[in-house]
Parts: sequence; structure tokens; C-alpha cells
Amino acid sequence: MPKYSVILGNLGNTCDRFLSSGYKDVPPMKELLKQAAEIDGVEGVELVGTWDITVDTVDEVGSLLQKHGLECVSIIPDLFSQKRWGKGTLSAKDAATRKQAVEYMRGCVEIARKINCPTLNIWPGQDGYDYYLSSDLVQERRWLQENIRAVAAQAPDIRFALEYKPKEPRNFSFLARAADTLLMVKEIGLDNVGVCIDTGHGFVAGENIGESIVILQQYGKKLFHMHFNDNHGSWDDDMIVGSVHFPLYVEIIYWLRESGYDGWYSMDQYPYREDGKGAIEASIRFLQMVERVLDARKHEELKTLMREGDNVRTQNWLRETFFK
Amino acid sequence: MPKYSVILGNLGNTCDRFLSSGYKDVPPMKELLKQAAEIDGVEGVELVGTWDITVDTVDEVGSLLQKHGLECVSIIPDLFSQKRWGKGTLSAKDAATRKQAVEYMRGCVEIARKINCPTLNIWPGQDGYDYYLSSDLVQERRWLQENIRAVAAQAPDIRFALEYKPKEPRNFSFLARAADTLLMVKEIGLDNVGVCIDTGHGFVAGENIGESIVILQQYGKKLFHMHFNDNHGSWDDDMIVGSVHFPLYVEIIYWLRESGYDGWYSMDQYPYREDGKGAIEASIRFLQMVERVLDARKHEELKTLMREGDNVRTQNWLRETFFK
Amino acid sequence: MPKYSVILGNLGNTCDRFLSSGYKDVPPMKELLKQAAEIDGVEGVELVGTWDITVDTVDEVGSLLQKHGLECVSIIPDLFSQKRWGKGTLSAKDAATRKQAVEYMRGCVEIARKINCPTLNIWPGQDGYDYYLSSDLVQERRWLQENIRAVAAQAPDIRFALEYKPKEPRNFSFLARAADTLLMVKEIGLDNVGVCIDTGHGFVAGENIGESIVILQQYGKKLFHMHFNDNHGSWDDDMIVGSVHFPLYVEIIYWLRESGYDGWYSMDQYPYREDGKGAIEASIRFLQMVERVLDARKHEELKTLMREGDNVRTQNWLRETFFK
Amino acid sequence: MPKYSVILGNLGNTCDRFLSSGYKDVPPMKELLKQAAEIDGVEGVELVGTWDITVDTVDEVGSLLQKHGLECVSIIPDLFSQKRWGKGTLSAKDAATRKQAVEYMRGCVEIARKINCPTLNIWPGQDGYDYYLSSDLVQERRWLQENIRAVAAQAPDIRFALEYKPKEPRNFSFLARAADTLLMVKEIGLDNVGVCIDTGHGFVAGENIGESIVILQQYGKKLFHMHFNDNHGSWDDDMIVGSVHFPLYVEIIYWLRESGYDGWYSMDQYPYREDGKGAIEASIRFLQMVERVLDARKHEELKTLMREGDNVRTQNWLRETFFK
Repeated sequence: MPKYSVILGNLGNTCDRFLSSGYKDVPPMKELLKQAAEIDGVEGVELVGTWDITVDTVDEVGSLLQKHGLECVSIIPDLFSQKRWGKGTLSAKDAATRKQAVEYMRGCVEIARKINCPTLNIWPGQDGYDYYLSSDLVQERRWLQENIRAVAAQAPDIRFALEYKPKEPRNFSFLARAADTLLMVKEIGLDNVGVCIDTGHGFVAGENIGESIVILQQYGKKLFHMHFNDNHGSWDDDMIVGSVHFPLYVEIIYWLRESGYDGWYSMDQYPYREDGKGAIEASIRFLQMVERVLDARKHEELKTLMREGDNVRTQNWLRETFFK
Repeated sequence: MPKYSVILGNLGNTCDRFLSSGYKDVPPMKELLKQAAEIDGVEGVELVGTWDITVDTVDEVGSLLQKHGLECVSIIPDLFSQKRWGKGTLSAKDAATRKQAVEYMRGCVEIARKINCPTLNIWPGQDGYDYYLSSDLVQERRWLQENIRAVAAQAPDIRFALEYKPKEPRNFSFLARAADTLLMVKEIGLDNVGVCIDTGHGFVAGENIGESIVILQQYGKKLFHMHFNDNHGSWDDDMIVGSVHFPLYVEIIYWLRESGYDGWYSMDQYPYREDGKGAIEASIRFLQMVERVLDARKHEELKTLMREGDNVRTQNWLRETFFK
Repeated sequence: MPKYSVILGNLGNTCDRFLSSGYKDVPPMKELLKQAAEIDGVEGVELVGTWDITVDTVDEVGSLLQKHGLECVSIIPDLFSQKRWGKGTLSAKDAATRKQAVEYMRGCVEIARKINCPTLNIWPGQDGYDYYLSSDLVQERRWLQENIRAVAAQAPDIRFALEYKPKEPRNFSFLARAADTLLMVKEIGLDNVGVCIDTGHGFVAGENIGESIVILQQYGKKLFHMHFNDNHGSWDDDMIVGSVHFPLYVEIIYWLRESGYDGWYSMDQYPYREDGKGAIEASIRFLQMVERVLDARKHEELKTLMREGDNVRTQNWLRETFFK
Repeated sequence: MPKYSVILGNLGNTCDRFLSSGYKDVPPMKELLKQAAEIDGVEGVELVGTWDITVDTVDEVGSLLQKHGLECVSIIPDLFSQKRWGKGTLSAKDAATRKQAVEYMRGCVEIARKINCPTLNIWPGQDGYDYYLSSDLVQERRWLQENIRAVAAQAPDIRFALEYKPKEPRNFSFLARAADTLLMVKEIGLDNVGVCIDTGHGFVAGENIGESIVILQQYGKKLFHMHFNDNHGSWDDDMIVGSVHFPLYVEIIYWLRESGYDGWYSMDQYPYREDGKGAIEASIRFLQMVERVLDARKHEELKTLMREGDNVRTQNWLRETFFK
């Protein structure tokens, strides 16, 4: 049975470039943790470094988690929301910025250790470029790789899950797709460095996430973490799971099982104008529905159908199996 | 209760630019009609002019339809598969080609009358352009409009449903989106000229088809015909309905009902490597499932939810209503 | 000769949902106006209502404009950056919000009159929806139409340019494409209501902007305003003109001339990490280069090429005409 | 100085799924070779196995090439246009088909050897899938990898350039992106197996081709071949180079030089309605223009600009350097 978790910030305020003050009000962190704990099935949270947790608050946050029976699934270092990171972090053209980013990451390792969190989820969203002809791609990609390696090599007790995304906030990200990221992971060559799939990021990249899972697992068991959401296909709309697509989630669940993934199913959404807790809850219930209907017998039926590849039969089976 | 139909050619061979001889074998037309009649729920067929029906074969085809209890829902003039149409038909730069296209269209009107077919479904797929700076857009768009008007004005007994598509086979089509096409329809200003929505064409255009239905119906009851299929979002993959998306079909059914559409639900797919009959059947069953579950009571519940616009509630309702 | 203008805010700070405090520092408004005036070719500015100008500051701003020899090209009512507009303005489900939006728009009319600004550029970015099945599309689209009509009918001395955009901040905008917007403009039926094209919004909608210009001008001279920028095709990246595409801008200039557009060429960009003034300047220089090279003789050559439609000849001509 | 080549079939007929008989007439192969030789700068051709060359015609074709002073740059095995390949070749679910595909590939190796052609350009266009849940992805991807390895291991004298493409003719290709393909190349682990970039395929995948070049070259000098064309971004429109985009081609040339690529610049287009020879010629002239303007001094200026990353300066430099 998969374990569900949520990125704590999903329950808080949301903003965009047009309404920078935000669409909602932010409850205090205590309240957010309480809400997370109340969602049926949630056993863990991901915390954004600096926002949700710092060296100074780690004990207090640890106590709160314990009180609510929640695990800290991952720390997500804040490599994106600070002005100093605006033109990049671990791969920034500016040497002093790169140095700050490495130091900041090491601080996050310390926080993770203190709160017994096994994973840093690294999303270097500001590392990339916007215009053609604006980056020494050899050099900057190498800095990113070397700096991740430098931090991870000194923290073999922590897993580093690199999260890819084709664009936003940069028009081109250095970690853009599952396979690009796996290539860098293999160059880094450390057991504790792998990949995080965010389903919506993969949709924007044109990936069938089922196949991304297969690639990451076949080429070295490198799928470390999963973020779930849905979108309309061309942008990271960060919507409730199942609100746009259906059969692809069945394929995701199928390959997560088949490939031996034993990590968390974490919700990563951005409910701009929705109740955050309700949006997360609806997503988890959707995935739980797929899990329930796709029981062991149905899973085996599906395996046979996929091997035969008769799409008419498979589509009829899907409709009859899942819909009323 | 909606009436289902199918474009006859969907049951036959399929090809593409790489495998131009086709992926399958073509059964004779008699066999295709028999297959169409056997699909549970199908009461009509659409015939492609020249391919499926000509002035010479109209009686024979009429008899076959009668034998199988099928109506001829529409004639689709072949404005796309002949070498002479390669650079356009009703809007071609070449005056002789435009004249031929008008004459050909008039021939299709005659065929439709003879077989008691109420509708010409006009898809001017070759009318458009591929490169920037390659078309006198004012002139060519005007030719298209005037030539459709000229044919339709002389055939007030026949309905002309203009089918839009953003691209393919041209990189830019003159009838590209629902609203573009409606604008031309309003300029033409004839009661018997309206629009055909192909769901997949609309997805590629970035449309929420529910909204396209509303626009066409609100601005003059101009939705004349519906083609159903699914795709992955960026191209007209012409797949089985429901094989990629789900909730948007609920919205389509909702607005077809609300807006008083009383035309056909016609299947338009391109089962390259699938059994054609099976693919059509699976699509119809998917839509019938949506129709059945969204009964009168559920339809009213949905209306209330849409007016309130609480997406968490609506997504929970969708999951509980449709899934096991 | 076209007149160039700039949206004043382009020169200021920029933020996004990840770095909401912004990538740069905001100079005071006086400084922004000075910068605008210094850009070679700029003769006007667009001001965002509330941000840049209010009833209270209109005299002061007017003096500053006069001092710098700048016209106020348009007022852009702020229908997007206030918390109360988060779920819509003129089409909001909430009646009190719609009323506030109408009143706010009337205030903007007053400001425009006081500063002798001829145009309100209406971008109702929050009017739309995010999820399928979340909006009574008939009702909400009607509110939008009626409220725009109500305001515009009482201000026949002011032109209302409706700016469309397929998505962002909503996943689906009610004013999404050129033709959708023109349909609503025609339903409104007032001489002083037309359309603003933002080139990048059109790219995301899959439009060839040259054709959008033709459609708007042919069906009633309804192109009221132009915003220029470039992007990578799938999102409103708001980049320097010419940084991604080239020949399509030649087509835009061609059709602006041919269709008798005599409005402003206004720059609308979002230089997240660039010097704002420099980005605007580079865009204007790019367009001025196209204007200069496409002189009267070259314009006529191009007209002939477009009518002939031989893409090989046209591409050779483009290369030889524009490149060194 | 780069050497230019062309895929011979580009000069012949073109068709699509709607006009399967083709838009043009096919000249005989002798005529096509003559045309290729006449294009200024062309020194080589790529031949499609079975279409252009077979074991039986290899001597005759060899003589013709010699007569025209053309090299055979690559053989492209026809893994796409035969009915037996409709559901896959080297990864087909059917074991007999996989065996046939391996044998056919070995035949192509023999042809290449006989005509002194150094490279097989492998585009397994039919290897992939169309629907979710239709493929045992682990097994089928493994078959593809093992079968390529099996053929390549026995032909160390021939280079195998694997050409990726996100979709078409399958909705999902197994070799979809640069990084996916490189991963498989690295798993295969043979010196004579690398990657071919088709620029348009990369655009559809959302890649900045400059970065794809860097990735392939940095992670093992695996860029074996280059196909050039342009498109509108969402589909493989196979258009004349430079007809849509501009600065990205400057970046491509820059990184081809920097990364030490010494292979061919081959034209791969699909001039549906254009004169084939003229389209290829226009593409080569566009690239030659970029090569000429970006001379050694300008190349160094650009290097400095890219390292500094000031997009305003770089865009001004681009305009001043390349445009009149």
C-alpha cells in the first residue's frame, strides 16, 4: 500500500505574477500541519527549506510533526523564491552565488538530519535560461552537476531526488525531462542521487509518465520520489489529480507497482482559488480509487492486455472496469 | 436521446505520409456498411463524396442504406484527397481550380438531394497555407466565403456544416477555430450555413469544446453537427473517445443538452492500427455511459455545481458519480 | 510612420509565482517615465489604472507626461492584480464583485478623460475558469458582454480595446482568441468597442497574427491597438521582439500597413531578469529595422510574392532582402 | 567548413494521409541525383534503403553517385513505409517481425559496405505506441535496445546514428528525445552507436537544439549526424530552414563548432507543395549565410556575450550583426 504525503505549502497561500499578494490568506504553519494531518490517508509532509523550516525552528517543527503523527518525507531547499537566486543557484554565472547555493544546500542537509528526514528534493527552478544564446551551456550545466555532486558526496545518509521541469520560472530548465536528469544522475554516479517525477512537469514535457517511470527504474532504480497533479497539457497548471486525464493515471499506478517503487505518493498542487486541503484530499481519493479498482486480479488482466496491445479491447476493459 | 452515426471511411483502410499504401486492408463498401449497421446504437452514416458515393452510384448506395436501416447523415465533399486540390479548392490561387471546386460542390448537392441527405459537411482541409508570407489573406479568405455562399444560396434545402481544424494538411487552415468559422458563417448570412465541431480539432485549437458549443449556439444556433474523437492534445490523433480525457466529455454532453442541440453524435476517428468497427463501438459505448450516468437528476446536480464553481466539490462529485 | 509606445510597468519590477517579491528593484514612477522618454522613438505610454495612475494623481501624472513629451496612449484598468478580482471581475459569479468592477471601470473612464487618453485597453485576465465543469458559460460570458457594453455605451468618447489571451492567470480565458473576441465585439455592437492584439497571446493561441489582423480589419475595422513581444510558442514569455521568430513580424508589418491600421505599436514585455529599458529599446529597434528594410518598393515586391505563393522564391527573397 | 548533403527523397514526391497519391510527380531516381548534384554546396546524399537502393541496384547507384561527384552520406533503412512494419520493427510485439527487422537491417549494412557508406541512420518511426496502456514498455524498449546492439556489434565498421522524434507516425516513439536516445546509446555501449539530431524533431520535443548538441557531445561525443529543417513548433512540418525561427540556428551553428562536430549538415525536409530542389537550396543558403556572417571574429564576440548573458546586449548584437 502506498503512503501518501503532501507538500505543506499547497495548503497555504498562492500567487502569480499578476496577483503577487496572493489569492488567499495564509494560515499559520501550525494550522497547515493540522490540516495535513486531518486529510484521510496522509502520513507525511514535505517542507520547503526556509519557508517551513530552518535550523532555528527544526525542534519546534519536529515536535509538531510528532504531535500530528506525520513524517517529514522530504525537505525541498528553497532554490527559487529568494532574490539572490533570480539568475540561478548551483549553476549561476556568478561564482559567489554558486558558493552561497552550495552552503545553503549543506544547511538543508543539516536540517534534514536533525529532523530525521531521509530525502532532499532538489528543484533548481532558477537554473536554466530564457533566451537563445544566453548561456555557456557546457560550463553552466557542469557547475550544476559538480555542485550537486559535491553536496551529495558529503551526505551519503541523505537521498537527493532531482526534480525536473521543462520550463518556468526559466524558459528552459537545465533539468528539463526525465531522461536529461537521469543522464546527469548517472554522470554524478552516487547511490544517493536519483530523480523525482512531478506528473504535471512530465505532461508538459510530452512524456507518458508510465514510460518515464520505466526508464528511470530500468536504467538503475533511480526513481526516488513522486509528485502528483494534473494539468491541461501545455503548462504546469498544478490541478487536482484526475480533473483532466484519466487512463494515464492507471498506467502510472501500474508501472509504479511493476517497477518496485516503494516511495511516497506525494501531492504537489497549486490550488490558486480552491481550498487547499480539499484539493489535496480530492487528489488522494482519486488515486485511492484507482488503487482500489485496480486490485491484484485486475492488475494481472491489465498486464495481459498491455502485452497484447489490442487498444479496442483495452479501452472496453477500462470503461467496464472503472466506470459505473 | 442522441442518435449516433459514423463516417463510413473510419471502418476502412488508414494510411499516413510514411506508410502511404495503408496499415490495413480495405473491405468493400458493402462490407463497411454492414459493419456500420452492426454497431450497437448506430443509425446513420456519413459518406465521403467520390470515395463512397458518386452521381452514378447514388441509387445503389441508397438501396444498401435502406437495407441496413441506415440514414445518410451527411455527405462530406472530397475537397482534400485529389491532386487537383493540393494547393486549395474554393480559395485556390488558381481561378480554374476554384471553378472546379464550386462545380464539384454543386454535384455533391445533387447527390445529397437524391439520397435524401440533409447536410453537406464541408471540410476545406486544403484551403489555407503553410508558410508565413505565402497568401493574400484578404483575397483568399474572401474567395472561400463567397464560394461557399454561392453554393449554399442555391441549395436552401441543404444544410452546410463548416468543419474547422487548426492545421493539417495545411500548416494554417482558413477555417481554424470555432469562432473564426462562426464569423465567416455570420458574414455569409444564410440560414442553411453553420458549423461542425470535431472534438479533436477543437482540442488542438486549445478550445474547451463545452465553451465552443456555447459560443456557436448563443450567437445564432449555428452548431449543425458534431464529430467525436480523442487525442493527446497537440495533434489530431483521432483516437477512441475517452482514451485520454474524461471530464471534458461530461461538459460536452452537458452543453449539447443545455443548448438544445438536436443533431447527430457522429464518430470521426482514424484507427490506423485498430479494428475500425471496434474502435467506433468503444467510442459510442463511452459516450452512452456518460449519457446514462448523467441522468436527469445528476444533470441538475451538475448544473448547481457549475453555478457554484467550487472545484473541490465538483471533482469529488465527478469521482463519486462516474467511477466505481 | 508608426508611433511607438510602451506599457510603463515594463520598465519596473517583475515577479512570478515562485519569486513573488520580484526579480528587480522598482524605480519610482518619475524615473520610469524619464526612462520611457529616453527610448529612441517612444512617443507614448500606457498606464495601468491604480498602479500608475488614480483619480488623485491624474494631474501630477499629466504634468509629468507633458514634461517628457509623452502621450498617454491607453489606460489599462487593473482588473487582475487585486485580491477582490481573484475569481473574476465583470463576469464574476459574485454580483457584488461584478458591480465593483463596473464602477471601477467607470472610474478609469474618468481618469482617461482627465488625462486626454483616447483608449481603455481592457484585459479581463481573471475572467474565465480553470477546471472543466466549473462555470455557467452562458451566463458568465453574457455578464462579461453586458458589463462591457454598459460601460462603453456611456463613454462614446473613449475607445475600448479588448485584449485577448488564451490562458494565464486562468486556464481558460473568456476572451481567448482574436475571433472569439471579435464575435463579442460584434454582439456588443458599439463603434467604440474593438480588439487589441498582443502578438505573444496570439502565438500561444496558434494564430498567424497577420491573419488575425486581416480578420479583425475585414470584419469591421476592429483592430484598435497592438502590443508587441515574442515568445517560444507555448506560453506568454513576453520576450524581446525578434528573439525567437523572424518572418512572422514581416507579415505583421505588411498587414498592418495593408489593412489601414493607424494606431500605436506598443511594447508589452516582461523583462524578468533584463534591464527593462534596454529590452523595450531592442524590441523597437527590431521593428524599426523591419520597417526600414521593407520600404515601399520592397513592400510591393512582397505583395507580388504573396499573391504568387511560391515559398521557395519568397524565402530566398526574405534572406536576400533582410540578411547581410 | 561543413559539408552539406540532402536526403534524396526530399526531391521527389510527397503525400499525407489525406492525399495519399501525392502532391507532385516523382522524377526518376537519375533525375533526382542530377538535381541533388546541381544544388550549390551539396556534396553528398542520404539514400533510403529499399526506396533508393537495394542489394541489386547498389552498383548502378554507386556509378551514378560517382558520375555526379556525390558521396553516400548515409543509408536510412526503411523501417517505416512497409505494411509489415505497421505495428513496429525491432521492438514489435510479434517475434517474427522483430526477426525480419534485424535481417533487413543486416541487409542494409551490406549495402552500406558495398557503396562505401559509413553510416546507417536509424529512424525506427513505427517503434512506439499510440494509446496509454498499450505496451509492455520494459520488454519492448529492451527488444529495441538489444536488436540495435545485435546488429551494430557485428558491424563495427559502420556507424549507427539513432534518430529520435517525439511522435508521428506513433503517438509516442520509443526514441523520443535527445536524452532518452543517448541513454539507450550508453546502455548499448558500443563506439559505433550514436545519435542523429533532426532539428524539427527536437523543436517538437521542446528542446533548444544547441543544448541537445551539448548534451550529446559532453556525455561521450555521441552526436553522429545532423538533419536540418524548420517548423511551427508543435509538429514536424519539415519546412525550409529559417522560414519560422532565426536566432536558434545561430546557436546551433555555434555549438556544432564548439563541440567539435565534424559530420554532415544534411537537409531533411518534406516540401509537400514546393519545388524540392528549390526548398533544399534555400535551406542550404540560409545556413551558409549564418556560417558566413558568424565568422571567427563574430564567433568570439558571441562567446563573450553568451558567457555574460546580458540578453539586451546579445539581441542588439544579433540584429546589428545579421540584419541589414
